[in-house]
Amino acid sequence: MGLVVQKYGGSSVADAEGIKRVARRIVDTKKAGHEVVVVVSAMGDTTDELIDLAEQVSPFPAGRELDMLLTSGERISMALLAMAIKSLGHEAQSFTGSQAGVITDSVHNKARIIDVTPGRIRTALDGGNIAIVAGFQGVSLDSKDITTLGRGGSDTTAVALAAALNAEVCEIYTDVDGVFTADPRVVKRARKIDEIGYEDMLELASSGSKVLLARCVEYARRYNMPIHVRSSFSGHVGTWVRNKPTEGGEMEHAIISGVAHDTSEAKVTVVGVPDKPGEAARIFRAIADAEINIDMVVQNVSAASTGLTDISFTAPKTEGRKAIEALERVQEGIGFESLRYDDQIGKISLVGAGMRSNPGVTATFFEALSAASVNIELISTSEIRISVVTRADDVNEAVRAVHSAFGLDSESDEAVVYGGTGR
Amino acid sequence: MGLVVQKYGGSSVADAEGIKRVARRIVDTKKAGHEVVVVVSAMGDTTDELIDLAEQVSPFPAGRELDMLLTSGERISMALLAMAIKSLGHEAQSFTGSQAGVITDSVHNKARIIDVTPGRIRTALDGGNIAIVAGFQGVSLDSKDITTLGRGGSDTTAVALAAALNAEVCEIYTDVDGVFTADPRVVKRARKIDEIGYEDMLELASSGSKVLLARCVEYARRYNMPIHVRSSFSGHVGTWVRNKPTEGGEMEHAIISGVAHDTSEAKVTVVGVPDKPGEAARIFRAIADAEINIDMVVQNVSAASTGLTDISFTAPKTEGRKAIEALERVQEGIGFESLRYDDQIGKISLVGAGMRSNPGVTATFFEALSAASVNIELISTSEIRISVVTRADDVNEAVRAVHSAFGLDSESDEAVVYGGTGR
Repeated sequence: MGLVVQKYGGSSVADAEGIKRVARRIVDTKKAGHEVVVVVSAMGDTTDELIDLAEQVSPFPAGRELDMLLTSGERISMALLAMAIKSLGHEAQSFTGSQAGVITDSVHNKARIIDVTPGRIRTALDGGNIAIVAGFQGVSLDSKDITTLGRGGSDTTAVALAAALNAEVCEIYTDVDGVFTADPRVVKRARKIDEIGYEDMLELASSGSKVLLARCVEYARRYNMPIHVRSSFSGHVGTWVRNKPTEGGEMEHAIISGVAHDTSEAKVTVVGVPDKPGEAARIFRAIADAEINIDMVVQNVSAASTGLTDISFTAPKTEGRKAIEALERVQEGIGFESLRYDDQIGKISLVGAGMRSNPGVTATFFEALSAASVNIELISTSEIRISVVTRADDVNEAVRAVHSAFGLDSESDEAVVYGGTGR
Repeated sequence: MGLVVQKYGGSSVADAEGIKRVARRIVDTKKAGHEVVVVVSAMGDTTDELIDLAEQVSPFPAGRELDMLLTSGERISMALLAMAIKSLGHEAQSFTGSQAGVITDSVHNKARIIDVTPGRIRTALDGGNIAIVAGFQGVSLDSKDITTLGRGGSDTTAVALAAALNAEVCEIYTDVDGVFTADPRVVKRARKIDEIGYEDMLELASSGSKVLLARCVEYARRYNMPIHVRSSFSGHVGTWVRNKPTEGGEMEHAIISGVAHDTSEAKVTVVGVPDKPGEAARIFRAIADAEINIDMVVQNVSAASTGLTDISFTAPKTEGRKAIEALERVQEGIGFESLRYDDQIGKISLVGAGMRSNPGVTATFFEALSAASVNIELISTSEIRISVVTRADDVNEAVRAVHSAFGLDSESDEAVVYGGTGR
């Protein structure tokens, strides 16, 4: 009966009814004998509405002030949640990120956690309280200014607090029943994964699975903190993300975790790059200087007759314009011929341990795509993942084909409980 | 060219347009060579909407959590205002009450300021910034919890910061042109008061004038901080509230400041009280123990034949039920006959220095009411104020009659600029 950290997202606390429902679930956990720390996001679309307001008063809202603005969102949800719990007869206190001891660097809008000093939370728990903590926010060590953690910030707050408080588990409540072998909106027979290791979860998250962000999984892996992803709308057991010991009998077999897909990226091709040492480095230095995160990179074999090669990479569509502009600035210096930009692509990834040493996995993967008449444009592999880029229109069909080929389909599609979009 | 503290209320920053307009005015003040500290309220009806939400999740929202909730309102407006100023090319930083050093006691929802330590504000000003501070909020000295200051809190924040920073003036921006000789919605020919002393302003505020609350005027008087009440919609000079030296020629004349009215109170009459020492004390002890603020108190002459008397008092309508319940609990002990409750009353007050020593003032006051056929139910006087209670229906007519009788009417009603309700 140890300490449990629970995180509820914006869709779970979108209105007064949702807040009361979440309050009852928290009280049930407390009644079961646990100490409970709750991390909560802003209600529903509050954050988007605040960003709209900011854009109305300023074309480029200052980072410090945007953080001050956005952190009001969790302040509202956490105070309401604490009130709702108290009206059920249990003691609760809410804490801002700063009060909870979430110390960050000074990079506004995407701060990184550098320390967690939850002294006030510990005191509140010792006094018999349920502690409600604002997700997504902290206070900078240097300037004492309020910061926000950027995308996936609330999940990361929850895992960080769980680690600092030596919690038994960090429960991430969402509107789906857990992590699935594929997106259930695309694959009707996708199965809920009961247990998955940190590495596989990381690959799934990086490959487009929206349920957990890679950042939070990385934090959990570093501190070996078990995460239980589950639905706030049902009482079902969800997906456990934790160190998964390899069982003896499986050591030499590939264990496929699931199929992820992602249509949020675009493909940039640098055409006619002189095929000599250092050219690729200059291209990616230009991209890095523009602070663009790239995903897959492929360089075609050079055509011997021309001495020129093509380099393709994928990056978020939202960074597409910035990438093109950065490359245009260095075109003359590098001397490549032209740029091609394609945002009608999709990526399908198969994730599972032991994949690299089982050549059959790759073969089955390509056979399945071929049978579904899906054309492959780029390929990239890691120790536990194989990804391909295809036309965006082919993605859903490709996911279904691969999911089926690896025997991931459930017996029936009745078992899948699914409540909405995963966030 | 000293330091100016400006306070903008919720109606001045109700939307993005309002925020941009206020930002331009602030920048103009800065350009004129002043250091500028701005205290801002929550946007429009934000606070009421948050209270609604609280009541949806909890019948009796906990004070600590309600304060956490409500303080998000100013967080939004102050961050947006800082962004808007920065987009005009000037440096601005926003600060919560806690960051600005507004230290309070621990009484949630109506905390009192006990210290102001504006070190971060001073640093921001020294760095060339305009400082934007959340009104209405502070941090408790003992528990380090977030507190709110209750009604009139933002005005009080502004005056307190002005005093702590040795400002030249505290400008209170509102949606009217200043303090008027009467409510311009009732008296078309009400005149804007150019200058008024703290004492008269206090009496006007206590008597129903909504432009400034007594609390903020008291604070300004204690620190001798001049207040300039003016419109955020026009560039007009407003009303200066400051120590007003009595001019030689006026020493023995009454100087009437204005007529205030108030229809927010109810009258409670305790009927048939035994006319012996200590009975009134027991009645008002019961009222005080219920934490009800009473305003006027009148005891009728005892009817010699019965040995019984009636005691009447007025209190806010919102406290009416509590007052009746408190008195019912002591009815048997005190032995009074019955209670009467009347919430259809109004109060008219005439405020001005030197009134007591000019009997003609009182006579003119009652003659004016009589000529307007207004019946008087209670009378109460102070050194610089005379107040009467009438039927609520008679209040507007009574205010107009008194305003006119004392020569306060302006030459025409064209001069009055009035933008809405005073808050």
